[in-house]
Amino acid sequence: MSGKLFDKVAILGLGLIGSSLAHGLKQKGIAARVVGSDASPEVRTRAREIGLGDEIAETAVEAVTDADLVILSVPVGAMGDVANAMVPGLSPETIVTDVGGVKAAVIAAIEKALPKENAFVPGHPIAGTEYSGPDSGFGTLFEGRWAILTPSARTTDAALGKVTAMWEALGSDVETMSPAHHDIVLATTSHLPHLIAFNIVGTAADMEEVTQSEVIKFSAGGFRDFTRIASSDPVMWRDIFLNNKEAVLEMLGRFSEDLAALQRMIRWEDGEALHALFTRTRAIRRGIIEAGQETAAPDFGRQPQAPQAAGGGEPAEAEAKKPARLAEKG
Amino acid sequence: MSGKLFDKVAILGLGLIGSSLAHGLKQKGIAARVVGSDASPEVRTRAREIGLGDEIAETAVEAVTDADLVILSVPVGAMGDVANAMVPGLSPETIVTDVGGVKAAVIAAIEKALPKENAFVPGHPIAGTEYSGPDSGFGTLFEGRWAILTPSARTTDAALGKVTAMWEALGSDVETMSPAHHDIVLATTSHLPHLIAFNIVGTAADMEEVTQSEVIKFSAGGFRDFTRIASSDPVMWRDIFLNNKEAVLEMLGRFSEDLAALQRMIRWEDGEALHALFTRTRAIRRGIIEAGQETAAPDFGRQPQAPQAAGGGEPAEAEAKKPARLAEKG
Repeated sequence: MSGKLFDKVAILGLGLIGSSLAHGLKQKGIAARVVGSDASPEVRTRAREIGLGDEIAETAVEAVTDADLVILSVPVGAMGDVANAMVPGLSPETIVTDVGGVKAAVIAAIEKALPKENAFVPGHPIAGTEYSGPDSGFGTLFEGRWAILTPSARTTDAALGKVTAMWEALGSDVETMSPAHHDIVLATTSHLPHLIAFNIVGTAADMEEVTQSEVIKFSAGGFRDFTRIASSDPVMWRDIFLNNKEAVLEMLGRFSEDLAALQRMIRWEDGEALHALFTRTRAIRRGIIEAGQETAAPDFGRQPQAPQAAGGGEPAEAEAKKPARLAEKG
Repeated sequence: MSGKLFDKVAILGLGLIGSSLAHGLKQKGIAARVVGSDASPEVRTRAREIGLGDEIAETAVEAVTDADLVILSVPVGAMGDVANAMVPGLSPETIVTDVGGVKAAVIAAIEKALPKENAFVPGHPIAGTEYSGPDSGFGTLFEGRWAILTPSARTTDAALGKVTAMWEALGSDVETMSPAHHDIVLATTSHLPHLIAFNIVGTAADMEEVTQSEVIKFSAGGFRDFTRIASSDPVMWRDIFLNNKEAVLEMLGRFSEDLAALQRMIRWEDGEALHALFTRTRAIRRGIIEAGQETAAPDFGRQPQAPQAAGGGEPAEAEAKKPARLAEKG
């Protein structure tokens, strides 16, 4: 017994969320021992190079052996396979949780694989960046964000309490709701926005009257805001849309209806209706800022970025840490 | 003669762009004297309180008298009226330019009002924030951004040279193109993105299964990114859509077609096509970062925002300057 919330936590899947959990659980003293693993040999090698957690196990079975908590942090479509793969290593006392962005489909997949003795706490932290992979994680990712837990028939009170305590120790606020409600809320606040962002970036790239270079040069007019979430992990997002199909199609139907109405306002030059809509949308941002979920700094507090030398192979991440050319002038 | 690029510049319209120009022209020594004016008495009073430019004139005629450059920085739909109002104060040598986000319609409106002797240089800086009004301006807004000039039959080489020199001195790169091409490029990189952002924020606010409070709490899943440009000035955007109707409707048609195809991929569970689209959109952001038009910092480099006390009347702008509650912990 370590005196920590958990003696051993196993993290299966070392992308942005898994690697952020590994950092956070160690930095904040939540787990005495953190063992990670990943299906990809390249990811395991990289995770060892950067010293992620206490150990990177070769297999899921090895990682979960003697763990008191297992966190599944793989794309939604891979949850069932990873759950199946780890089962031989589980002890009956091990609590299992996940971080999947869709809940109903993921619960079904994991509970099919999981032995009846194991408590399961379905979860989803509402946090992330547009970067992915084991290098992208950081221990403060979950601070000030919400973590949603969606208890199922396999969730015990004791397990729910421990997973809640973990998220709170990571700096998150915790809310519980039903899996079905989660899936419609997230279709609204996350899945539809991503879908629209992917779509508009695709539409702009296909314009034959406007060159790709013009789209890039003049992107500060608004377009670049969409490219951030449209550069999120393609596998993760493919799986989310396929596994939350009904809610996403429902939201998409509403969006398209509203867009048709807006198109009609423009065609018939209904300036009053346009002005009314644009005034209403302003108030929502103010609410998000007041709730502490967004910065009030103009332009997200963006710092200017120096153009990169042509052919320069330096990663953009490193470049961001240097003072930008134009900022130096001011 | 002041030895500066301009002896006197008049700025008509003191919103985000007008007030940023007033700051920038003084701070960078581009104009010896900057005189502003605005149709709104409240804006004129506020501009005087914060010491914007050298003087705030009561009328457009008074502001433009003896100016060697007049910059029209009002919403696109007001350009014709402001041009008409200032004409009695113009001398034949005065160069006129504008910053309107639509060019064909604005050129027609301004040239109808302007005496034949005056040179006119239609322009549009691709820069801004989501804030508006005379307090929102800052002199570095145009640094590292593009300014587009769209010469018309009324543009002389000498006037084009001086306006180009002004934008370059403000830190911008200048590109010239035809008004019609500008209007289709900006429909792609700015007008369509704003339209989609206004629409999705409206759609989310109207969901009856999801409360407004849930939309706000869980907005970090992607939704909040859209609220920034959806909180831009409603009058400015109403006018842009009404004055660039054809190009906006054309882009909207393409967007809707693409969205229907994407909807079909989800309905028929075409994971391969989804993955291909999501991979392609990633590359575009990298191009924008490499061109110096976007930060590479994760999440736009956003800093966490402390939740505001309930009922606190403090403006969000002031709050942003304080260290956030959660940042203090880290």
